[in-house]
Amino acid sequence: MSRRRQIYEGKAKILYEGPEPGTIIQYFKDDATAFNAQKKGTINGKGVINNRVSEYIFTRLGHIGIPTHFIRRLNMREQLVRQVEIVPLEVIVRNVAAGSISKRLGLPEGEQLPHTLIEYCYKDDSLGDPLVAEEHIACFGWANNEEMQDIAAMAIRINDFLCGMFAAIDIRLVDFKLEFGRLWDGDYARIILADEISPDGCRLWDMNTGEKLDKDRFRRDLGGEEEAYQEVARRLGLLQNEDGGPGEVFDLSTARNKLRGSKTKH
Amino acid sequence: MSRRRQIYEGKAKILYEGPEPGTIIQYFKDDATAFNAQKKGTINGKGVINNRVSEYIFTRLGHIGIPTHFIRRLNMREQLVRQVEIVPLEVIVRNVAAGSISKRLGLPEGEQLPHTLIEYCYKDDSLGDPLVAEEHIACFGWANNEEMQDIAAMAIRINDFLCGMFAAIDIRLVDFKLEFGRLWDGDYARIILADEISPDGCRLWDMNTGEKLDKDRFRRDLGGEEEAYQEVARRLGLLQNEDGGPGEVFDLSTARNKLRGSKTKH
Ligand SMILES: Nc1ncnc2c1ncn2[C@@H]1O[C@H](COP(=O)(O)OP(=O)(O)O)[C@@H](O)[C@H]1O
Ligand SMILES: Nc1ncnc2c1ncn2[C@@H]1O[C@H](COP(=O)(O)OP(=O)(O)O)[C@@H](O)[C@H]1O
Ligand SMILES: [Mg+2]
Ligand SMILES: [Mg+2]
Repeated sequence: MSRRRQIYEGKAKILYEGPEPGTIIQYFKDDATAFNAQKKGTINGKGVINNRVSEYIFTRLGHIGIPTHFIRRLNMREQLVRQVEIVPLEVIVRNVAAGSISKRLGLPEGEQLPHTLIEYCYKDDSLGDPLVAEEHIACFGWANNEEMQDIAAMAIRINDFLCGMFAAIDIRLVDFKLEFGRLWDGDYARIILADEISPDGCRLWDMNTGEKLDKDRFRRDLGGEEEAYQEVARRLGLLQNEDGGPGEVFDLSTARNKLRGSKTKH
Repeated sequence: MSRRRQIYEGKAKILYEGPEPGTIIQYFKDDATAFNAQKKGTINGKGVINNRVSEYIFTRLGHIGIPTHFIRRLNMREQLVRQVEIVPLEVIVRNVAAGSISKRLGLPEGEQLPHTLIEYCYKDDSLGDPLVAEEHIACFGWANNEEMQDIAAMAIRINDFLCGMFAAIDIRLVDFKLEFGRLWDGDYARIILADEISPDGCRLWDMNTGEKLDKDRFRRDLGGEEEAYQEVARRLGLLQNEDGGPGEVFDLSTARNKLRGSKTKH
């Protein structure tokens, strides 16, 4: 097999050329960064969990009619997705004040916002992903009006779905980050959900204890980040204890191979 | 005369109770601050000029149908205005990239923006007047939708008027800051222009030399801030050379008193 061409290496993922035109492979690393990559580290097994969690969420969002870039998971760390032209915005959906908005507007962390708030940041690491308003987005042509309407409508639907999904496993969805992209079809571009949805880009608090189950454990040196990511995967039913051993992310193809190898059925 | 009650002392002005209910007196100080009051100083005669320039601009904006708080100038440093409930937003209108937007979005200073941009900052000194989007304004109820539409429409009209006014005196209007307030009439509140428009809150560049004629001279330690403020007033025809002496801000009441004293007419 010839070496795949690497398209881009980001902070958490590597993109490779996919097998067919218009597809790419997202490889999920264990690398973790925070505060605009000023802080760097590794969270063991994070890539495996994020790949699986993002597959799980994107698949289910597809079921409710949200168009996404996800095609299929390839293995523990890789997924095949549709290549898009990324809209250079981080779309942040907030239900509860935490992190940058708490600091910026002086809101106590954990305070429920009067209503769900969508924020847009201009995706540019060298500028520190600055907050922008729709005026800036229109002025600099980062997305047109129709695209922004699609993005806002999808963000709200995704938030409703994820709030429900996480509520079912006793997790409070505080906020999360989305990226969208343009899928060109001739002269027409359709907006679809891209990138990933995982504990890397969400704030997830245990509903009963308030414990943080997300990248804030890493950002704030709380420790236990590996366990937190695993706990989210476990509650989503993605971590299977096999033979009563320590849980690992359930991998369908691995399981199938095992089944084939052992020629047994459970 | 009994001592007037002081309502508020800000960074550049003091507010006193006005002679009739619903009115206040704005006293213009020479105090100058920058970078959220981290830098403090004085610009000699600034208060006198800002009082006069703001009167001039608000009066003319009234003539084109922009409702303002301005009633009349009382003396060199004071003007009588309608008391309003200030909308806690700094409304920034930008024609050319400079200052915070250049830094925030990496735009070279002096670059014409693709089109005029309105930015909103939440007016809170302790938070450093953070940039906000209309989503935040709606979420926290700082202004309602209708009010925001009025504010944006007025801001655009004011920009057109001021661009013309400054162009006529060879000044490029780079950006400026506005504040609006609610004038209550029973249960109904009308949005009117409040605060001031002066070289304190505008970026004004000489069209030919590019020289800064505004508070950036103070912010950036360029020197000559007094002369810059005077130059703006002079070009607006507000600085009169009397007896060929050094120019001073023309003050109607002072002039009248002089006339009465000397019992002569020119
Ligand atoms: N479907 C897609 N097509 C093209 N680019 C994508 C797609 N999905 C995500 N991306 C981009 O790939 C990169 C993912 O790698 P990541 O490590 O998250 O990078 P970054 O450090 O830029 O956030 C991001 O820049 C993201 O915008
Ligand atoms: N018509 C008005 N009614 C009530 N308050 C006003 C009016 N016009 C301006 N203000 C407020 O008065 C203050 C003016 O003083 P200033 O020194 O500019 O204060 P600041 O340091 O808060 O900017 C501002 O806080 C401004 O919002
Ligand atoms: Mg990323
Ligand atoms: Mg002020």
